[in-house]
Amino acid sequence: MFKRMAFIGIGLIGSSLARVVRRDGLAGEIAVAARRQETLDAALRLGLADQVTTDPAEAARDADIVVICTPLGAYAAVAEAIAPALKPGAIVTDVGSVKRAAIDAIKPHLPTGVHLVPGHPLAGTEHSGPESGFPELFEGRWHLLTPEAGTDAAAVAKVTDLWQRAGSKVEVMDPAHHDQVLAITSHLPHLIAYTIVDTATQLSTDLQKEVIEYSATGFRDFTRIAASDPVMWRDIFLTNREAVLEILGRFTEDLTAMQRMIRKGDGDGLEEVFTRTRAVRRSVIDAKQA
Amino acid sequence: MFKRMAFIGIGLIGSSLARVVRRDGLAGEIAVAARRQETLDAALRLGLADQVTTDPAEAARDADIVVICTPLGAYAAVAEAIAPALKPGAIVTDVGSVKRAAIDAIKPHLPTGVHLVPGHPLAGTEHSGPESGFPELFEGRWHLLTPEAGTDAAAVAKVTDLWQRAGSKVEVMDPAHHDQVLAITSHLPHLIAYTIVDTATQLSTDLQKEVIEYSATGFRDFTRIAASDPVMWRDIFLTNREAVLEILGRFTEDLTAMQRMIRKGDGDGLEEVFTRTRAVRRSVIDAKQA
Repeated sequence: MFKRMAFIGIGLIGSSLARVVRRDGLAGEIAVAARRQETLDAALRLGLADQVTTDPAEAARDADIVVICTPLGAYAAVAEAIAPALKPGAIVTDVGSVKRAAIDAIKPHLPTGVHLVPGHPLAGTEHSGPESGFPELFEGRWHLLTPEAGTDAAAVAKVTDLWQRAGSKVEVMDPAHHDQVLAITSHLPHLIAYTIVDTATQLSTDLQKEVIEYSATGFRDFTRIAASDPVMWRDIFLTNREAVLEILGRFTEDLTAMQRMIRKGDGDGLEEVFTRTRAVRRSVIDAKQA
Repeated sequence: MFKRMAFIGIGLIGSSLARVVRRDGLAGEIAVAARRQETLDAALRLGLADQVTTDPAEAARDADIVVICTPLGAYAAVAEAIAPALKPGAIVTDVGSVKRAAIDAIKPHLPTGVHLVPGHPLAGTEHSGPESGFPELFEGRWHLLTPEAGTDAAAVAKVTDLWQRAGSKVEVMDPAHHDQVLAITSHLPHLIAYTIVDTATQLSTDLQKEVIEYSATGFRDFTRIAASDPVMWRDIFLTNREAVLEILGRFTEDLTAMQRMIRKGDGDGLEEVFTRTRAVRRSVIDAKQA
């Protein structure tokens, strides 16, 4: 598919994609750039890279496709660094969780004739780093592409093909709409999970110990979500601020209403909400997302 | 172990325990009382009952042990109904999620010589009803007993033995302390999951459809929690009001602080929280509760 493929950053997502590329022989050679030597050593040891470098430009030089897999906060610097090394017709894609900000950070730096096809795999685990990847990560999962109007159709088709080979279901979406949907499905749930787990860290030591011991009753599920990569999530909240604050505002209103029902002992009101939410689970199961 | 055992209510928890009792032959006969004929038919069909009745007193008559498995809101009426039928030395236990309220509802009705040993299995699924039970539900899970000071030690030992045979790890705890711990580990997480899923139900139809389609990124986990039995959870929030409102107040404070960090773009503050919460996951794994 590609003579030369470059990964800028190679954590859970990047290393999982690199494993797919290796498994299926989708690229003649893989170049990997990362800031830390430790990460590059791991990429070599795992057989995921033919060349490693701390210089993004060196990895991107002559690549047919460059996959940016760093946290969102590094995108502008990465784009600026790789721009002079990109060959005409090269494709630049990424795997970041916020698409408007991804485009705004990358696009101004790219030379004409380079195709930007931003993407977001809806896949992941609470683990991070190149060792945590596995090639099946994307199987049956969505991959959302958010190319701007006028993007080269052949480039979009090529990125689509790549992710389909990884097992993903690919869908094209408007970047701002993507960010709104993900604020609800992913960013708000993570924010809430981080918060509740942090609330628990502020309890007395004895109580905290018991909370962990008896965590299987609900809290445990939140600790898994709240174990996701801190830098990645910091950047998500910084770059999707508006959409997150909007849905957080609605959630807070609803939580206040629940609080009032509990305080007033409004059993009918509570039961009505709990019955309504049960139906949503049914929809998730029907959509084969359970 | 018991000549006659009575279940008042037989949903997920009751039917799972009844399956254990049948599997291991722990009772000579099992009597089941439930309000709905449909439930009683299911109990008979599943081979979990030798006698079924809509009258709790009839089931409890001559029983060595009565296990109350109804929602908490029905406890007082159940206790009042069974009291005249209880034989001296009988044990009454339950499986409710709030222990102070359980004791307050049951105890005043019990005749002297009947032993109240309240209990709470930290086990469950989002499914309910007698068909959803399975005998392995309690394996490796905690069972918290909250007998009051002065409770007959032999009765506590017998209930302990019963749950240990079901595979549970049994621990004795003060009822008010139990309610505080569970408010954090279970009740607040459920309240938040119910709320966020309800927030989603108020979105436009199109957006809601997308939220369900792309729910695997975090939201999905909340829908599972928010699919738990509505009446059971209504009663939990009504009966553990103080402890839930207390921890909800702390959570809301922490959420407001997170909101402020996002609004102000305080990346360092966010990263600090996210790093702290990641460590909690490690503790959960170390406690073998993951």
